[in-house]
Amino acid sequence: MLSIEKYQHVFVEYLEKYSAVKEPETLYSPIQYILNLGGKRLRPVLTLMTSEVFNQDYKKALNAALSIEVFHNFSLIHDDIMDDAPLRRGKATVHEKWDVNTGILSGDAMLIMAYQLFENYDAKTFQALAKLFSKTALEVCEGQQYDVDFETRNDVTIDEYLKMIEYKTAVLVAAAMQMGAIVANASIEDQNNIYQFGKNLGIAFQLQDDYLDAFGDPKTFGKQVGGDIIENKKTYLYIKALEFSNENDKAELKQLFSSNPEDISTKIEVAKQYFESSGSAEVTKIAIEEYTQKAFTVLESINISEEKKALLKAFGNSLMNRTV
Amino acid sequence: MLSIEKYQHVFVEYLEKYSAVKEPETLYSPIQYILNLGGKRLRPVLTLMTSEVFNQDYKKALNAALSIEVFHNFSLIHDDIMDDAPLRRGKATVHEKWDVNTGILSGDAMLIMAYQLFENYDAKTFQALAKLFSKTALEVCEGQQYDVDFETRNDVTIDEYLKMIEYKTAVLVAAAMQMGAIVANASIEDQNNIYQFGKNLGIAFQLQDDYLDAFGDPKTFGKQVGGDIIENKKTYLYIKALEFSNENDKAELKQLFSSNPEDISTKIEVAKQYFESSGSAEVTKIAIEEYTQKAFTVLESINISEEKKALLKAFGNSLMNRTV
Repeated sequence: MLSIEKYQHVFVEYLEKYSAVKEPETLYSPIQYILNLGGKRLRPVLTLMTSEVFNQDYKKALNAALSIEVFHNFSLIHDDIMDDAPLRRGKATVHEKWDVNTGILSGDAMLIMAYQLFENYDAKTFQALAKLFSKTALEVCEGQQYDVDFETRNDVTIDEYLKMIEYKTAVLVAAAMQMGAIVANASIEDQNNIYQFGKNLGIAFQLQDDYLDAFGDPKTFGKQVGGDIIENKKTYLYIKALEFSNENDKAELKQLFSSNPEDISTKIEVAKQYFESSGSAEVTKIAIEEYTQKAFTVLESINISEEKKALLKAFGNSLMNRTV
Repeated sequence: MLSIEKYQHVFVEYLEKYSAVKEPETLYSPIQYILNLGGKRLRPVLTLMTSEVFNQDYKKALNAALSIEVFHNFSLIHDDIMDDAPLRRGKATVHEKWDVNTGILSGDAMLIMAYQLFENYDAKTFQALAKLFSKTALEVCEGQQYDVDFETRNDVTIDEYLKMIEYKTAVLVAAAMQMGAIVANASIEDQNNIYQFGKNLGIAFQLQDDYLDAFGDPKTFGKQVGGDIIENKKTYLYIKALEFSNENDKAELKQLFSSNPEDISTKIEVAKQYFESSGSAEVTKIAIEEYTQKAFTVLESINISEEKKALLKAFGNSLMNRTV
């Protein structure tokens, strides 16, 4: 098996060949642009790695991996339009560099192109990949819709929030791994287990992102610390803080999360104090640990060598920024 | 075989059952809304009819027919956003009734749902349907992009225009018919021929739409006569008129098609005079006839009974508003 860096490298090489601009150029150059903005290529690497974990040459999984990456970038283009985001990975978003119509249409084309990448597989594999892909893609849309809906709601429960991040983020990580297993002809049981591994790790990763947004080190977090607080995002930290607070604190926290003050550093500090004093910071850390352990437990029952289990576990730990 | 009206009826019944609203309601109710706005259901009826032409029970083709209709309505939602259109079939468009973000996301979900409708077919049929679907859907996106690009160009050739309407309109009619043939296990040769029949009829239909926009009877045309002229659309009539005009007329016609006068009836009359005097109205009628005949010629080589050929021909003639 290759190292993460090697998988990234071969994937990016394959991607560059794929994303050559076709006619009409106005449709395809935004596609080339977004696909080449960079990133860690986490999801396609997971597809390649999983195919080798189940004893398949990773080269056979390149088209499935590319499909996952094309879909992910389709969702970035459309989400950036919906969020009115000017920047993506430090560069102009597609609808900023071109316009909203270009973003809509190039995104649509990418969603179709993602399906086309399954066409080189035999009919049975094609159907298994496309079915999983459709189910996952629809869940990602539903997750995005829940996220939008939650912005204007004040009564989002922790279960609803967990379902939202599962759909919006975790299922794609899970599907990326299961696709590697499908290409490797793994048993249905192993496929389901690797899906659960990816899903739980994905949830843990998103919860950690919520936690680090408030308590992360500005030097290593990669995004603006306190960004969720500034934007009044109702994350796991916020919902749990509300749940654990008395009526008085609850009202003040709600007030804080409907304000847009000039002095953001005070707002961030006050929010962090609520998260810590209410105990929500602590239960968030526990939840991260629980989902990570859930992933590692399901890993045990997969029919692969101990060496390969250790490898997936190491990858999981590295993803969770842990040096175990 | 059933009558057109019967196919429409069974299709709409099937569609109504399908479009029940799921959670999140904010994602799925716009989908239910657009799917139930009505329309002639031309494309899905063609799928059902073609499956019976090739000796398959039309019920087996219902999911393929529904997929075509769901895709068509996805493209209407996204096109209406791009065109900033307030109305669709006399009712508010999705982005008007809800908002642009809802239109983008509900449209995305429909594109995925269109693929899911193939899942009930066996793996081989699934792959054949999904491959044709992806190729066609991508061409529709390309056609839409060419249409957008042509708005700001003054040198569109007749070949470019024909390619645009082929991609934007005709290939979906063609694919609707081929899908019926795929479900019926028709030979590849028959599949290709029925595709060509649908494609040529689709081009003829679109050219006729161009012609009737200028010369149609306001009582029966169904759209505002002169709409293309008001919007300065470079249709077949316009491109051919330019081609056939001397430098002086060419300049005046270009001038006319970059103006937005208050007095639209004079503009329409002047444009129509150019179309007639240049000979472009006449060659457009000839082109419509040629594409229709091309469709009927390819029909001859399909391995079906004379009775069924006559039926498809009658359908083609009714589509072309001809009483032969």
